[in-house]
Amino acid sequence: MEPQNPTLSVTVMKIGVLGSGSVGRSLGKGFASNGHNVKIGSRTPEKQEVQDWLRSTKGNVSAGTFSDATAHGEIVVLCCLGEATEEVIRLAGTTNFEGKLVIDATNPLDFSKGMPPGLFVGTTDSLGERVQRMLPNAKVVKCFNIVNNQTMTNPRMKEGLPDMIICGNDEGAKRQVASLLKEFGWGDPIDIGGIEGARWLEAYTALWVRLAMKLGSWSIAAKFLK
Amino acid sequence: MEPQNPTLSVTVMKIGVLGSGSVGRSLGKGFASNGHNVKIGSRTPEKQEVQDWLRSTKGNVSAGTFSDATAHGEIVVLCCLGEATEEVIRLAGTTNFEGKLVIDATNPLDFSKGMPPGLFVGTTDSLGERVQRMLPNAKVVKCFNIVNNQTMTNPRMKEGLPDMIICGNDEGAKRQVASLLKEFGWGDPIDIGGIEGARWLEAYTALWVRLAMKLGSWSIAAKFLK
Repeated sequence: MEPQNPTLSVTVMKIGVLGSGSVGRSLGKGFASNGHNVKIGSRTPEKQEVQDWLRSTKGNVSAGTFSDATAHGEIVVLCCLGEATEEVIRLAGTTNFEGKLVIDATNPLDFSKGMPPGLFVGTTDSLGERVQRMLPNAKVVKCFNIVNNQTMTNPRMKEGLPDMIICGNDEGAKRQVASLLKEFGWGDPIDIGGIEGARWLEAYTALWVRLAMKLGSWSIAAKFLK
Repeated sequence: MEPQNPTLSVTVMKIGVLGSGSVGRSLGKGFASNGHNVKIGSRTPEKQEVQDWLRSTKGNVSAGTFSDATAHGEIVVLCCLGEATEEVIRLAGTTNFEGKLVIDATNPLDFSKGMPPGLFVGTTDSLGERVQRMLPNAKVVKCFNIVNNQTMTNPRMKEGLPDMIICGNDEGAKRQVASLLKEFGWGDPIDIGGIEGARWLEAYTALWVRLAMKLGSWSIAAKFLK
């Protein structure tokens, strides 16, 4: 995989990716291809899909437990299933997140009634806010949750460049996320304010799933025309 | 106002617009400019803003009570404030909606904590579903609620044509809405299924308000890139 933006000069960061599903593998590969030092965290880092990912991914990559990956990261990226997010944070050890930028790409999707999913929390609370409450000394930024994993690291589409939307309570953390997004080829993200904006970014995903099912493509992404 | 699409041959319909605020006036003017017979409904149809609208709007327009406008319409368009919607339907008389296409452009925005608004119902229910439950023999289609009133009837933007998303339980009613949208210059709407999709279209609006505030434009609208 080529760096998304080879002309950009990148400060190498240690990045902990929590979750070895398709989102974690895709974002982990993307960060590694941009030169970052990535440790992917899993309940069972010895399992085949993690080992295959390590073998097939170029760059500085390693795997470990959720706790290992969180301790490793100067930046921690939450890529686990929505319903597992809070347990994953407990397994990772909340003290391992202190003072760090936490990029939250999770969605509280509720598949208990099949497809398309609902949300198990929404409109008066969000998974992003729950994560920030669990980690009061971390800097949580909601990001990446509104597109599928391939678009996350390769946003350019034939019709143009879609928009990424972020929110979080810390301005510096959001600037750092904007810079990481630029490495992947995104434009300036739209910052909708504090972490409570996650209510609407998460609810948007329930709409996105329905649009994707209708349009027959999981790579759809929104561009906001002015 | 020129018809949005003067080359299209239009079947003239009687349209009842419930609500004389900016959305109702804009949609009412749009339908009238496409040749339809529009009656706008208000609690107080004699008030200045309704009378000014009647004087300034070309075409076949009239005003009356909510009940008058609903009885008039072969198609009824809900354009009232979200919090007033259920009361407006009761004032209009639920039997006046029997068997009719009802286009629901409302949003359950909750401004009780100021700007930007939350939603007073969401994720497990929606105002669209509440409307359909109140009017079991009407054909409710959620439409127009995801853009501002000027974009509703003039969707073309300098960066291109945004997407309209609709949902509802009746296929014929949705085809009829698609045809009305075409008169305004929209492309084929994206149909996300039954009226329960309103949960996500309404939640999307809370995101849209935040994007609009951030981007400094109330005319932003999403185009879904594939």
